[in-house]
Order: sequence, then structure tokens, then C-alpha cells
Amino acid sequence: MELVSIAEARADRRKAASRAHPAAAVSPDASTLIADPALDLVVLATPPETHFELAAEALRAGKHVLVEKPFVTSAADAEELVLLADRCGRRLLVDHTFLFTGAVRRIRDDLASLGDLLYYDATRTNLGTFQAGTDVLWDLAPHDISILLSLVDRPVELVAAIGARHAQASGPTMAYITLRFASGPLAHIHVNWMAPAKVRRTIIGGSRRMLVYDDVESSEKLKVYESAGTAGLGPGEDMLRRMVDYRVGDVVSPQLDPAEALATEVAHVARVLLHGEAPVSDARLGLRVVRVIEAAQRSIAGDGIPLTVDL
Amino acid sequence: MELVSIAEARADRRKAASRAHPAAAVSPDASTLIADPALDLVVLATPPETHFELAAEALRAGKHVLVEKPFVTSAADAEELVLLADRCGRRLLVDHTFLFTGAVRRIRDDLASLGDLLYYDATRTNLGTFQAGTDVLWDLAPHDISILLSLVDRPVELVAAIGARHAQASGPTMAYITLRFASGPLAHIHVNWMAPAKVRRTIIGGSRRMLVYDDVESSEKLKVYESAGTAGLGPGEDMLRRMVDYRVGDVVSPQLDPAEALATEVAHVARVLLHGEAPVSDARLGLRVVRVIEAAQRSIAGDGIPLTVDL
Amino acid sequence: MELVSIAEARADRRKAASRAHPAAAVSPDASTLIADPALDLVVLATPPETHFELAAEALRAGKHVLVEKPFVTSAADAEELVLLADRCGRRLLVDHTFLFTGAVRRIRDDLASLGDLLYYDATRTNLGTFQAGTDVLWDLAPHDISILLSLVDRPVELVAAIGARHAQASGPTMAYITLRFASGPLAHIHVNWMAPAKVRRTIIGGSRRMLVYDDVESSEKLKVYESAGTAGLGPGEDMLRRMVDYRVGDVVSPQLDPAEALATEVAHVARVLLHGEAPVSDARLGLRVVRVIEAAQRSIAGDGIPLTVDL
Amino acid sequence: MELVSIAEARADRRKAASRAHPAAAVSPDASTLIADPALDLVVLATPPETHFELAAEALRAGKHVLVEKPFVTSAADAEELVLLADRCGRRLLVDHTFLFTGAVRRIRDDLASLGDLLYYDATRTNLGTFQAGTDVLWDLAPHDISILLSLVDRPVELVAAIGARHAQASGPTMAYITLRFASGPLAHIHVNWMAPAKVRRTIIGGSRRMLVYDDVESSEKLKVYESAGTAGLGPGEDMLRRMVDYRVGDVVSPQLDPAEALATEVAHVARVLLHGEAPVSDARLGLRVVRVIEAAQRSIAGDGIPLTVDL
Repeated sequence: MELVSIAEARADRRKAASRAHPAAAVSPDASTLIADPALDLVVLATPPETHFELAAEALRAGKHVLVEKPFVTSAADAEELVLLADRCGRRLLVDHTFLFTGAVRRIRDDLASLGDLLYYDATRTNLGTFQAGTDVLWDLAPHDISILLSLVDRPVELVAAIGARHAQASGPTMAYITLRFASGPLAHIHVNWMAPAKVRRTIIGGSRRMLVYDDVESSEKLKVYESAGTAGLGPGEDMLRRMVDYRVGDVVSPQLDPAEALATEVAHVARVLLHGEAPVSDARLGLRVVRVIEAAQRSIAGDGIPLTVDL
Repeated sequence: MELVSIAEARADRRKAASRAHPAAAVSPDASTLIADPALDLVVLATPPETHFELAAEALRAGKHVLVEKPFVTSAADAEELVLLADRCGRRLLVDHTFLFTGAVRRIRDDLASLGDLLYYDATRTNLGTFQAGTDVLWDLAPHDISILLSLVDRPVELVAAIGARHAQASGPTMAYITLRFASGPLAHIHVNWMAPAKVRRTIIGGSRRMLVYDDVESSEKLKVYESAGTAGLGPGEDMLRRMVDYRVGDVVSPQLDPAEALATEVAHVARVLLHGEAPVSDARLGLRVVRVIEAAQRSIAGDGIPLTVDL
Repeated sequence: MELVSIAEARADRRKAASRAHPAAAVSPDASTLIADPALDLVVLATPPETHFELAAEALRAGKHVLVEKPFVTSAADAEELVLLADRCGRRLLVDHTFLFTGAVRRIRDDLASLGDLLYYDATRTNLGTFQAGTDVLWDLAPHDISILLSLVDRPVELVAAIGARHAQASGPTMAYITLRFASGPLAHIHVNWMAPAKVRRTIIGGSRRMLVYDDVESSEKLKVYESAGTAGLGPGEDMLRRMVDYRVGDVVSPQLDPAEALATEVAHVARVLLHGEAPVSDARLGLRVVRVIEAAQRSIAGDGIPLTVDL
Repeated sequence: MELVSIAEARADRRKAASRAHPAAAVSPDASTLIADPALDLVVLATPPETHFELAAEALRAGKHVLVEKPFVTSAADAEELVLLADRCGRRLLVDHTFLFTGAVRRIRDDLASLGDLLYYDATRTNLGTFQAGTDVLWDLAPHDISILLSLVDRPVELVAAIGARHAQASGPTMAYITLRFASGPLAHIHVNWMAPAKVRRTIIGGSRRMLVYDDVESSEKLKVYESAGTAGLGPGEDMLRRMVDYRVGDVVSPQLDPAEALATEVAHVARVLLHGEAPVSDARLGLRVVRVIEAAQRSIAGDGIPLTVDL
């Protein structure tokens, strides 16, 4: 793959783009770029509210499209694009970069070894400078929802969420999102722009093993634990042991592929386009992510009312 | 205060109690102990389902009573005991030990300096051997709910909870409980017996400062952070800075009183009984805690349905 | 084993001892206790400068003796006691409690799997209130030296140390001690009473695996790492990879026996006395520890001069 | 400042350099570059053994010179360059990048507030792929020695070091270096290519405050502690308190300037050249760093023999 052409509305950034990529054409206009017959793939790194129009234009022009997250700003738009891509016979991919990290790829490989999936608990918080035109649901939650849905291949049957808005924000600055999958496993996602410390922690509970994925850790991002012996215990029985030893078995922190996620993703996209490899993050996954966000928004509007869904 | 008498049903434990407290009388029968006119205070460290009967008996016998958490197993029982204690003119206290730790006492002292309270987020998880006759709501949640209600002096207007039950447990083994207080602040409590690692972390978000209380930390249990500058930001503006620096201002970890919580509590109870000091954890607090747990149970039974309450 | 008799010079502590151990005789005089024919084992928990006299008296009275660390205050005294114990046919043991922790026992079991021993690096620091009559060498270093010598069964051929004395201390308040064993492995111990944070970390480098023992960690005290691929590298070659990935292979944190070290030690001592089990920490180990400390003192007095020894 | 010209021996890298810096001339020959009258400053990012020749050539050609660490490979070369730079009236600077991090700049600002300097303890370890033509002394130690000497403005009077060489390395792969400054403070540097985990920790002990600088920490790199109350204590006195509370006062983690060290350094170099600002890291500092490394090498060759120096 080769970078052929860049469209950028702002003059100062066009200048920087030219300097960084002297071989690429740089223009102020997306439509010109999209119309360029030399291009096979259009990558959209524009504001979310422009994704639908630009992606549709590119698909109609016969291009494959890779869209930054969040895919689009409504499930209706997502559905339309999915259909359009099918009609045009082009690939429509969504850039959920975290799916290409060494950690998430390893979790996917090891998931079956955890036994029955009991729950999934993700926390993604930091002290964010607010961004106009978005909120914490659309900014942070797509990361966790896309990881979750790419790992758990079951329909979501319930979504409940509660949030709060602080300062002059236009939407939620923090939210707790609960999902339940068919046949049981619970998922919970806490996203927060108003938290004092950066946390990126996911816990996956399984009947045989449990896993903690801490993306803030520099060298031991993943740890795998044996699950508890869950045999019943009479009241008061063995309480002392319980105080001193919460562990069962060894803890293993597997070595992860240190390759940069973005480079891994780009190589994957090339294989999808050139060799027909199955896409890890296509528009169908993007659509499911947007549907969950929309359901969470509705639940928040209803003060936490749980919604029965089939996503 | 002096330990005068111990009642214990099990013979082996009576023997151990005699050895540890040679000056105290040890008997197999609680009623004999309660009837002893030499006693001023009865401490109940018995299974929760016995608390109501024994506390009522002791109050009627003219004793002050200190009950281990959970106070009782229903709000109805708690209400009856509150009235009975008033009628008997005796003190009825609930042993929420965490309220007497150096960390929680310091949080109480510093709370006003955080500015407006934005949210309260508590996580209490570990790999617990299941106990018969209780569940994670009654076992772990009273710690966080009692800390929360002792800090935030406002009515709770909404409770929503969702949980899951694993293995052969009789009740929830994990739960997410959301509370909203009048005029806004959100509280969220995650309790979990099925988590691979022990977590005891509470985050309190304020408009001026934020606070992290990590009880697993050995020396820096409390950290106070400046709140974010929350001024609006155009999309794409200053994103680089946001990537590299999530901090605003210094972080301070205040020195805490290292006194043992239980010793601090016992000294406080003595001052309540002898000098009329206002109790930190009386039956009214215990009643509110039980009401929140009952509301959480109802919400869980209704699959996460949020309940409008006035607690 | 049964606690029969306690000798304690201070009246207030005799009272506390009687209360805690009502079945034991309590007297103000060690010699009376030592002369008691009912005793098989005398445990010395007295100031170090009294150890020599009391241990000698007890051995001559036909008792086995367990002495708290530091064993004695000079190698000459230690040698004399070793001979005396042999002559009296009694066991003389030194209480190096750390040797009985789950972590150190596990290290001993796994040591061979590390491959060739390359180095041993221990740090033991905290903010200590100074104690009169001792210094950091005699207070903290015996822990690390005893662990080291119990693990590495080779003669020490070189000792070098440098230290500093602060405030009104009578001896060093911090010291760096380097030992070299025959055929190569280096050991280094940093002990410090003047450090801002408590550190208890030992790193053992082996040709196949490396191990970190962090006693401050609550649940993952031991971690085992694969050793680096140490193949040569041209200058500038592969530097990027080196920046992003310092790891080789999985990291495993083995589950440790949670039994209390002191209880494990007491059970071991009973087996040594009653069933002839080989002692983990006898007077010969105690003598070697004291010899290393004395050599370190001499090196410090000589401003870091390395001493050729055969210990 | 503007990047005018790049000299690079390897063809593939010349190509990459041209792509990254299309405005700069790229040539295979350093002498051509040095002779270019359009240049004011020559930056040497070449192997250490070439630094002396190239720096001398550039100084003689009337250029200012900035040399990557290690400055040169012998103190004799360093001395000659210092004299040459003076004679040519040109600036000769050494790129000790760490001196320009927010953390080290903050330490410099706060050092006086620590009270009397008691000691400096640095650990810099990782699992390094060996590099041919260098060793751990020349690769890692210059970072810590340059930070140390830039902070402590006193002569070094003693250097002692001990090291070990592993695998097929040509020089030490680990070393412990001890320095003592005039009038007392001790400094100790542990550098290690054979350690299982990356550690970058410096502790500075002062009579009033102590400071921990942990460069691996992402958000709290610097922590400032109150120093211990160091009043004498009778043996056995207050031992319990000592067990539970090693802290005195609050711990403060100051906010650091998040600016990139290299960008800060470049801006500083520009001010040195254009406005006569006093250089933070000139050839005299570079010379002192090299002298300490040479002394450490001699001490290692003498099996740890301490050397009396005046550096």
C-alpha cells in the first residue's frame, strides 16, 4: 500500500502534511481526492459527523473505506452504509485500533481457556479536557464496546446505563453502561472524563481462569489468574485463611507481541483488500457498537431504565 | 470499659475465649449474659440472622448494644430496633469499622475542600470463598454504603442495581449498585466475590479536587488531586497535550492516623456511652444502609430497574 | 512443644506475659529459668549483647537454644558458642525468620531452575527510628545475609562495604555491602534506615531465568522472568526493538505457601529437636552471617577497602 | 535554528533521512558537512569512538558542537577537546538529555529544600540486548553520573566500583559505583544490563526532606517525603509504632513540565548559542562524567579498590 493523496481543510496542516509526506498529493478538498481513480482505499480521519457523507461518497466512487471510530453518529446511518457497501461490493472497515494491540489479540486467542465466561468489567477513565461536539459515550466507550463485541460472539439482550454531566459539557462526562448477553454473561463499562487518574483496566471472569488487562502497565499488561475454588463454606468457617490468602494458583503474565497496533492494523487491512482475509473490524461490528451506544443514551435519558434489546 | 462476660455456643471456642480472656466469665448462653446486671454494653458478633432477636432482648434488659455489620437482615427489623432503642433510652450502635480508619476519618475532614461533590465510585472485589447464608450484597456492600452515607448527608432518591450469581451461590456473587442523591451526585459501588485480585478503591470527584482512597496500598492510601481544567475545547484542539499530560497540579498523599480502626472505635463507643459524644455509626445509619441494600435487591430482582426512593 | 516458663526483667511486661500466657511461670530472672530441669529449649529474645552469656549458660545447663538474630555481636563469640554447643551435644539455632517465609522457601526450591547464578541484589530500606546500641548493619543486614548464605552454598571470597552515619547515630545508618562468591557470582546488599519509603526487594539473576522477590507486594511477592537473549548486537542494530520491548517470555508469579513464617519455624524447630531434621538455620549459618557483618564493618572502617576472605 | 545538512555513511539511512527532511542536504561524508560555511552548529550522533576526531575537526572549522553521550571514550580526549573549544572560542556541549526532563529540572529547583544532602542512590537496570563495542558503564552510567554531577556542585573525593561480566560481553554488564563527595554525601549508582525488569529509580536523602524519582512511573515520577524524626530511641522502645508507621508527614508528587526533554534541550542550545545563556551540559561536565567512568573502570579492574580522586 502506498499513500497517494491527502485532503485537509486547514492550510497549516496541509503544509505539515506535505512536509511529512513529500510524495503524496495534498489538496483542500475531500471530493477531489475521493474521485481520484488512482486510489483503492479512502481512510477517513475527519470529525465523526462527516463520516456518513464521506464514506457514502467514497463507496459510490468504488473505493474501499476505513473509518476512524466512532463509525458514524447514528445506527440508522451505520445501517445505510452497511447496505451501501454490500451493494457497491466494497470493503467498509472501522478503525477500532485497540483490536490490533498485542494485548487484545492475545486475549482473543486465550479466551476459550478461561472456561465459561462469567463477566467482563472495563474501566476507562482520565482527566479529559472536554471536547466540543462529543461526549464520553462517543469518545471513550467505542474502545471498550468494540473490544467486548469482538470477543463475545453472542447477542446483547439488555442494555442499562446511567450517567452524569458536569461543568459546561453538552453530554455525559461519565457513564456506567451495563450489558447482558444472551445466556448470561454480564458486561459493565465505566467511562469517565472527570477522573483524577488514568485507568485502563479490563477484568474478564471465567469459570476456570480470570484475566486482568491493564493498559497503563508498561510491561505486564495482561495477567491470568486461576479462578477461585468456589465450594460452599459454612458461616465463620475458615475465615482466617480467607483473610490472608485470596489467591489460587500461579499468576502468569504472558509475553505480548510488541508490534505497534496501527502497523498491525494497516498490514491486516492490506491483507483484507488484497487477499480476502476476514476483516477483524468491519462495518457490521461498527454498527453493533453504535447500536449499543444509542441504547446506552436512551437508557441514560430514562434515568437508568434497562432496555431489552437484540443487538 | 472492661470485658466482663462472653457467651459462645461452641465449646472449642469457649475454651479459646477463656484462655485469651482469663478474667472474663464464659458461658454457652446469650440470654444469661444479657441478663447479667453487671453489664452496660452488649456487643453482638453473632450471625446476622440472630441480630434482631438478641439486640431486642438486650435493649429490653436495659443494655446499650453494639451490633456487627450487617445490622439486621431487613429494613423492617432495623426500624423496629431503632424505635425500641429510643423507647428504652439505650444506645444502639452498628459496628461499621471502616468509618474509624485513619483514611475514612481524613476523607470526612477533607470532604468540603473538594468543592461540589460530583460523584463517588467504589470498587471492592476479591476472590472470595463463598459463605453459606449470605451474598455479596450483605457481605461486602455494607462497608461502602456506610462510608458513603456517613460522608454524604443528603437523601438518596434513586437506586438501581444489576447482579449475577455464579457457581452454587444462593445470592448474587457480584453486583453493580448505582445511587443518586438529591441535587445530583452519583454514587456507584461494584462489589464482587469472583474477581481475580483484591481491589479496595474509592474515587471521589469534586469540582475543585478529587480523591482516590486505595485501601490495598500500604503507605499511600489516600491521594488528593486537583480537578481538571474543564474549559471547552474545539475538536482536535490541543489533542497532543491531552495525550501526554492528564495531570493538573500537585498530587498530595496526606499522612493518616495509623491508629487501629477497632481501637479507635472502642474508644469512641466509650465516649458515646460515658460522655454523650455523638455516635458516628448509630442505628439510624444502620437502617439507611439496610434500606439501600434492600432497594438494590429489588432492583436486581427487576433486572436493573431503577427505583425512586427517599432514603 | 509447650511454653513452660518466661523470664522478663521489666515488671510491666511480666504482668502482660502472665495475662497472655496464664499457664506459664513468669519470673524476673533468666538464670532461674535456665536452671529449670523441666525445660528442653531456651529461646533468647533479649538484647543482642546478652546473647553470648545466656546462650552459653543455657547450653551448659543442657538446654537446646534458639537465639533471635543477630546471633551474637562478634565472630569470636559465635565461634565459641558453636564449639560449646558441639561439646554439650545440644542444638544451637538462630532465628532468621525470613528463611521460613513462603517466598524464601519457594526461592530455595526453584533456585536450580534459574541456571547459573549470575548475581544477587537485595535492597532493604525504610525510614527507621534509630535504636540505641545497634546500627543498620546489625539490625537489617542479617536478614539479607542469612537468606543469601542459606541459598548460595559456596565460600565468600571478597567483602567490600561503604557506609554513612547520619544524625546522632552511633554507627552506620546506611550501607552498601558487596560480596563475591568463589567462582564468581556477585552479591550486593543495600540496607538503609534513612530511606523515604519501605523497600524489600531482592533480584536474583540466573543464566536461564531471573527472579524478583518483593516482600512489600501483598499478593505477587515472587516473579520469575526468562533471561535475556544475550546474543551480541552490532552498534545501532535493533535499537528500536530494544526501546519498546525489554521482555523475553512469560512472567510467572508462583503461588506461595501463606503459612506464617514464625509458625513454620516453630514446627521446624520441633522436628529438629524431636526427629533429628536437619536445621535450616543453625549456629554455623549464624556464625557465617556474623563474619560477613564483621568484614563489612572492617571494610567500612577502611573506607570501602575490599577484603579477601574465606567465609 | 534550521536543519541544513546531514552526513550519514549508510545508504539506506541517507534515503530515510532525505525522506524525513526533504529540505536538508544529505551526504555520505562528515568532513564535507563540517566544512560547509553555512553551518553554525554540528551535532554528533555517531559512535562514541568517532566523537573525538569529529568534534576536533568541527571546532577547528569554527563550528559549535553538540556531542551525544558518552562525550568521548577517555578523559585525555575530553581534556584536549575542552582546551580546543576554549582556544577556538566555540561552544562544546554534551547531550545529556535527562538533564532536560521535567523531573530532573524540578529536582534541581527543589534540591535546596531537602536540607543537607545525605545521599544519592540511583538504579538503572533493564534486560538489555548487548551492544558490541560498549559496556554498561559507558552505556547507562553517563545518565546517572551527569544528573548527579549537575545537581551536586562539590568535588568527588572517592570512587569505588565493582562489576561483573556475563555471557560473551566484552566489558561489565553490571556495576555498582560508589562516589563520595567532599564533606560527606555518598552517591551510589547501580547499572545493570542483566536485570529482569526495567528500573529507573533515584532516591535523594536530605536532612529535611527526601525525594524519589521514578522514571518508569507514568504520572507520579517525583515524590517528596518528609525526613524521619531521628531522635534516639531506647532498645525495644516504641517498636510497635515502628512496625506500623514508617511515614512522617505528607507525600507530595509535584506536577512536572510535560515538555519533551529533547525539545527543551534544543531550545536551550539555541539560547546558549544566540543569547549567551549558561550551558547546562557543557564539555566540562562531560569531562567530569568521563573521569568518573574511568575511575570506576580502574576500581573494577582492582577488584573494588576505592580510589582517592579529586574530580
